[in-house]
Amino acid sequence: MKSILENIRLKTPLIHCITNYVTANDCANILLACGARPVMADEPDEVSEITASADALCINTGTVNDFTVQAMFEAGKTANRLGIPAVLDPAGTGSSGYRRKKVSEMIEKIRFAAIRGNASEIMTLAGIETKGRGVDSSVSVPPVYELAGIAKALSGRTGAVICITGETDIISDELTSFCVHNGDALMSRVTGTGCQLSALISAFVSVNRDKILNAAVAAVCAMGLCGEKAKKRMTSPDGNASYGNYIIDAVFNLTPQQLESGAKYEIL
Amino acid sequence: MKSILENIRLKTPLIHCITNYVTANDCANILLACGARPVMADEPDEVSEITASADALCINTGTVNDFTVQAMFEAGKTANRLGIPAVLDPAGTGSSGYRRKKVSEMIEKIRFAAIRGNASEIMTLAGIETKGRGVDSSVSVPPVYELAGIAKALSGRTGAVICITGETDIISDELTSFCVHNGDALMSRVTGTGCQLSALISAFVSVNRDKILNAAVAAVCAMGLCGEKAKKRMTSPDGNASYGNYIIDAVFNLTPQQLESGAKYEIL
Amino acid sequence: MKSILENIRLKTPLIHCITNYVTANDCANILLACGARPVMADEPDEVSEITASADALCINTGTVNDFTVQAMFEAGKTANRLGIPAVLDPAGTGSSGYRRKKVSEMIEKIRFAAIRGNASEIMTLAGIETKGRGVDSSVSVPPVYELAGIAKALSGRTGAVICITGETDIISDELTSFCVHNGDALMSRVTGTGCQLSALISAFVSVNRDKILNAAVAAVCAMGLCGEKAKKRMTSPDGNASYGNYIIDAVFNLTPQQLESGAKYEIL
Repeated sequence: MKSILENIRLKTPLIHCITNYVTANDCANILLACGARPVMADEPDEVSEITASADALCINTGTVNDFTVQAMFEAGKTANRLGIPAVLDPAGTGSSGYRRKKVSEMIEKIRFAAIRGNASEIMTLAGIETKGRGVDSSVSVPPVYELAGIAKALSGRTGAVICITGETDIISDELTSFCVHNGDALMSRVTGTGCQLSALISAFVSVNRDKILNAAVAAVCAMGLCGEKAKKRMTSPDGNASYGNYIIDAVFNLTPQQLESGAKYEIL
Repeated sequence: MKSILENIRLKTPLIHCITNYVTANDCANILLACGARPVMADEPDEVSEITASADALCINTGTVNDFTVQAMFEAGKTANRLGIPAVLDPAGTGSSGYRRKKVSEMIEKIRFAAIRGNASEIMTLAGIETKGRGVDSSVSVPPVYELAGIAKALSGRTGAVICITGETDIISDELTSFCVHNGDALMSRVTGTGCQLSALISAFVSVNRDKILNAAVAAVCAMGLCGEKAKKRMTSPDGNASYGNYIIDAVFNLTPQQLESGAKYEIL
Repeated sequence: MKSILENIRLKTPLIHCITNYVTANDCANILLACGARPVMADEPDEVSEITASADALCINTGTVNDFTVQAMFEAGKTANRLGIPAVLDPAGTGSSGYRRKKVSEMIEKIRFAAIRGNASEIMTLAGIETKGRGVDSSVSVPPVYELAGIAKALSGRTGAVICITGETDIISDELTSFCVHNGDALMSRVTGTGCQLSALISAFVSVNRDKILNAAVAAVCAMGLCGEKAKKRMTSPDGNASYGNYIIDAVFNLTPQQLESGAKYEIL
């Protein structure tokens, strides 16, 4: 786990994000915090070239529209052609038929190295009926072992490592599921902590392509651990805005050694 | 006033924002701070469905364009059809003929529960010639009683509770005008405090539909009170960036009891 | 240099930004911090009118697309017709053929008062082959005297003051090059410090039109000096998110006297 973060600090990978305008700034800053470099671009006429020069592509459907979705398909095709890892954050995928359809097409036509969402979003992708409202997971979340089964099946179907984040995080390929116990409930009160984690996963897998599953576990542990560190830093009258800054600060200061010793994960 | 905020904390309403990309992140975080949940989406093909699942719709014309304006009309129509409260922030409406025209069409075709702007924006909506430049209210502001008259007339015409924010805030329906004395001048040095207030108003009215006027007054008091609390928290060398974070933190920590006792409002 | 900043505080110029959605919020807040007022708008049908009412136009190609590029040309034409200073930040111009083409067209068709970029971006504009990846300057940067020559030539061709920011900043017109030694390496770990500087340059030149070169030097010194002040403010466990806030805070608190005494610049 140590070497996974060391690789980012050493190689400063360039991460091409096609993402929503709500949390783009935080995604850029958390990438810089972890040692990577962000480039955000979503004009269909240029994304192919930008993805081609990047070390990973991160697609986030948070404020997707007909123009950015085009860019996502273009960039995804290029990433696949060149063997550049692509990560999908199907943000809010259950909130509209439009989004469900576009995300379904994406996982059919683009091969993702990893897909990260909350239980509601991943269950929507898996074709399981949910009642997710908005972008958070207000659905009653199935037990961990059931989620791991869903993740394994979806991984088998898509070839992607599946990350289901929530109180307990599941990271799974077709055969092996990890669960991660890092994190803090307060993270759900900061907009875009999920988007930021997807950006981190992109950075972690970009320079650890031979161990995508481990890299994704490391990224999930790193984000959760930084959520814990940021929580300990809080004093009155800090609230969710300060907390959001503290999380990014914690990623900035996270050493490979701290990640190694603070990560709480196990094989299911 | 206590129960109005308690209702948000209890019901965690989902607020659909079609808003500008400059302050979307702060709007999302202030909604989370007050106990609501944000969803930002502006693709015309999906907004109807998203509004339908939300507890309120917040339309902000800050960086409006031909595509998002379409989404605003779609979402507004749905909100009206389903009786979901819609709130309008006609940000920068005086700055271009384009915006004046689109906002005029909106208040003709969509019934809003509340409309919030600065004096310049509301006067533009009321058809009164102003010389507002940009999105702030650099026009010479008429006296409070005159503004209240403008607000009452515009409320009569639109059916919306009208909120005019500035040094003194006016909140008015056709018959009754309140004025609010909370707030701090420094709030105008943080981008998007107006947008954030409009988001808060949306959350406050969403779960207090039988008392829109009171809910809007409570939201305006809450924002102003948090501006005061944040100001008291400032120490050298804090500036407007820290202040912006402190405001959201203050909303996060605001208790219904504190709102009750700190609100400074009166009937005009 | 003192009077240049005093002019902003006195005249509170309105700056029209057509910029990227990643750093728009920070650009707005740094403009407010320095005493200017931001307006962000990119609908082609309204930008002309908004530029016409502004004191400067700031164009940033960070997340440019076919729609915003249209707005940039419209606004630029209006700025030139009315003698309103226009500033260009060719963010990430080397990252795609699309962006290179659009930016080339811009400097042909729009007369800019100033152009600010990193070495890679300015060299791309100057037609010098680079291998910039993403929006940062990962190319091996030529020595200062060589950069000054590139800046002078590009200034001669475009009529704009050229600002090349990096470890040492170059600010140059056709005849005279300054170099600025303010700043801190950590600034490159906060997204958008370059965009923010371009916004500041727009504010500085807007009210000092008879001395564009000096105004640009003052803006670059101000940003660098604030980067230094913010760095001194950092304590453990601050990271790049806190640092970003501290920079804007420092601009908010910067006095003309402090700028005068803290600016480290020389004629090359």
